[in-house]
Amino acid sequence: MMRILVVGGSGTVGQAAVKELSRRHEIVKAGRSSGDVTVDLMDEASVRAMYKQVGKVDAVVSAAGHVHFGPVSEMTPEQFRKGLNDKLMGQVNLVLLGFDHVNDGGSFTLTSGVLDRDPVRKGANAAAVNGAIGAFVKGAAIEMPRGLRINAVSPGLLEESAAKYDGFFPGHEPVSSARVGLAFAKSVEGALNGQVIIVE
Amino acid sequence: MMRILVVGGSGTVGQAAVKELSRRHEIVKAGRSSGDVTVDLMDEASVRAMYKQVGKVDAVVSAAGHVHFGPVSEMTPEQFRKGLNDKLMGQVNLVLLGFDHVNDGGSFTLTSGVLDRDPVRKGANAAAVNGAIGAFVKGAAIEMPRGLRINAVSPGLLEESAAKYDGFFPGHEPVSSARVGLAFAKSVEGALNGQVIIVE
Repeated sequence: MMRILVVGGSGTVGQAAVKELSRRHEIVKAGRSSGDVTVDLMDEASVRAMYKQVGKVDAVVSAAGHVHFGPVSEMTPEQFRKGLNDKLMGQVNLVLLGFDHVNDGGSFTLTSGVLDRDPVRKGANAAAVNGAIGAFVKGAAIEMPRGLRINAVSPGLLEESAAKYDGFFPGHEPVSSARVGLAFAKSVEGALNGQVIIVE
Repeated sequence: MMRILVVGGSGTVGQAAVKELSRRHEIVKAGRSSGDVTVDLMDEASVRAMYKQVGKVDAVVSAAGHVHFGPVSEMTPEQFRKGLNDKLMGQVNLVLLGFDHVNDGGSFTLTSGVLDRDPVRKGANAAAVNGAIGAFVKGAAIEMPRGLRINAVSPGLLEESAAKYDGFFPGHEPVSSARVGLAFAKSVEGALNGQVIIVE
């Protein structure tokens, strides 16, 4: 049994991860406003405080982060930067500040998304953020210390979110949260490193 | 003959673009400290002032931006953010603030790099930035207004830079600046949209 920190565990993707991983592991949930511990991933001090409070874990799973949706020709640098700061820098902070809090041979699993490989209108910021996350895990993986691993799960539109995003993802086939959960298990319990685990 | 703004035209990649494109087109060079006009891409006001000074163009080419190199397990959020702000946000600013300054049917061509598809030690920030740029052009391309196009050129290690980076890119086969120049011509003069044009 591993001890696993899941950040963003109350969101749709996070719940999928928790449901699958909690069958076999101890889960510590962190979130912006709920969970066993609260954290603002964009605030370094908050991330450090969370790790200190949680103690050592065997795996860190992140399903946290928002991006900006809007037409690229009307997007402001400020809006674009907001997505970078939130979904990208937030998850990167979790990794860069987390090395000392993950046991040897442990892992980080981040969440990207479908829009870098299968774009939709208004999704340019999401695409950029997802592309950065996928490339970051690929780049970081080859020099992880102490047998640590790092991957990203890239889920398609979740069935649970399909109604909320109706019309924004034309033709996208929703994926079940059960399959998304399996992708997190593959990253955490398997031996992959530097991979973007696509669920589509 | 097109009128082409090349930002970062005095760097190694920028020179390659200028050499090829200037054979057939009028080039306006912009740079941090040299060129026909100076610009700080990280400063929105500076980008706006550059576009105002330059006037309408048929294409914008960017070969600008630095990233942070260092072991991922020692990288600070501040260092990572610096690379995002510089090579990623700088080039994104150039696009988001440039729509009104590019003639109908024109194009943006950004520069990413090899490290998201073929990573090296100390290159996790570069990988993330390159991945973001490639995904951004893919996401933005599908909703570009007025027949505008957007692509990225992703050059391998340039022959001219091989000595400077000796030891950092083991086994990477350097590419000639002439071939890198052709990739920019393919983006600017061709009809591609949303592509990462790899030179390796």
